[in-house]
Amino acid sequence: MIKLVLVRHGESLWNLENRFTGWTDVDLSENGLKEARRAGKILKKNGFVFDVAYASVLKRAIRTLWIILYEMDLAWIPVFKSWRLNERHYGALQGLNKAETAKKYGGEQVHKWRRFVNVKPPELTKEDTRYPGNEYKYKDLNEEQIPLTENLADTERRVLEEWRGNIAEDLKEGKRVIISAHGNTLRALVKYLDDIPADNVANLNIPTGIPLVYELDEKLKPITHYYLSDKE
Amino acid sequence: MIKLVLVRHGESLWNLENRFTGWTDVDLSENGLKEARRAGKILKKNGFVFDVAYASVLKRAIRTLWIILYEMDLAWIPVFKSWRLNERHYGALQGLNKAETAKKYGGEQVHKWRRFVNVKPPELTKEDTRYPGNEYKYKDLNEEQIPLTENLADTERRVLEEWRGNIAEDLKEGKRVIISAHGNTLRALVKYLDDIPADNVANLNIPTGIPLVYELDEKLKPITHYYLSDKE
Repeated sequence: MIKLVLVRHGESLWNLENRFTGWTDVDLSENGLKEARRAGKILKKNGFVFDVAYASVLKRAIRTLWIILYEMDLAWIPVFKSWRLNERHYGALQGLNKAETAKKYGGEQVHKWRRFVNVKPPELTKEDTRYPGNEYKYKDLNEEQIPLTENLADTERRVLEEWRGNIAEDLKEGKRVIISAHGNTLRALVKYLDDIPADNVANLNIPTGIPLVYELDEKLKPITHYYLSDKE
Repeated sequence: MIKLVLVRHGESLWNLENRFTGWTDVDLSENGLKEARRAGKILKKNGFVFDVAYASVLKRAIRTLWIILYEMDLAWIPVFKSWRLNERHYGALQGLNKAETAKKYGGEQVHKWRRFVNVKPPELTKEDTRYPGNEYKYKDLNEEQIPLTENLADTERRVLEEWRGNIAEDLKEGKRVIISAHGNTLRALVKYLDDIPADNVANLNIPTGIPLVYELDEKLKPITHYYLSDKE
């Protein structure tokens, strides 16, 4: 039986400030660091071991992974970092306060931007300092790969490229995999794995810092999934 | 001009206890963590950027690298971890107190074990819990690759396999490389780069946590090297 563990990074500084984050490379809060340590300890306590790890190229996911691997005494395993596992790009909303944005555009519009699979937030311009094409980190991406904004379907497309190209291959080879990523990246992956209709995705929320364990058959179809938590 | 940065991991818990470490996976001390942060800050302050990083599979080197990359806002770059960059294997001396060992075998013998290129400490047996073949981490190595003990020439041989196979290739492609490793691993690499005769290696000491910068020509021959320190 094949095991896959998904972890949504711990609380970030902008979660605290209630701002849209997306590809902004915001650090973990003190609480986020604590959540990561707790996730590592509970995985270790439950006997989990990994052969390979994946993360986005955003530090809140990378540090969450580093802390988990350190706690599990697995700092030495290979770690692959990919922009395809980045949080959904939130376009021109990135950096804005969620409550203020709701006041300006209405709560219903903000809910649509956040949860509807096919609705995109307003686009960035390429001159915007927030445009990823202006960052050294994304220098190897071609222009079509660099988002101006994304809906969940866009995010899902690139997450599945990473899945099919690398993660699924590792799992089929019998490697035990952990993925440290983001709310929408993991939502997209869970939607795919559990074959959840687009209409039902709005209600799919993955909590931060709680390992989500998938047990998969040899075709990588889920047999079951469960959260590893020290709370009941 | 090609730049390569070598960093010897910060102080470990067994440095404090004055014990032979080798492949034992000892953690950094509080001071070692501080040294790593200082190394990261000084590299950043001096405008260094890296495209790829290498470390051993020992946590004192990996954590040193993680902290440096975090301080430099480069957590996202690829990191390759290899047993070939592990500290010299110290055979049956691993775990022993250096002062006690000197009392038992004589200071001269210990100096020879530590510094002479062709002298090996006593071998481990394969039944010894310290034998790396008994560790999951080294499951992919074949029996000839797993040391029972090593002299510096043995360490140099495997370090140069990593150099020729991967690191030198990256440098030739124009990538800026940082290596986080160990006293003897880096001594072996510096011996090779600067073509230092075996007799002179005993006096070659690389301090912990101070970035050692090599500027190389297109054939990877050193033009100059210097330490980056905030002390005089």
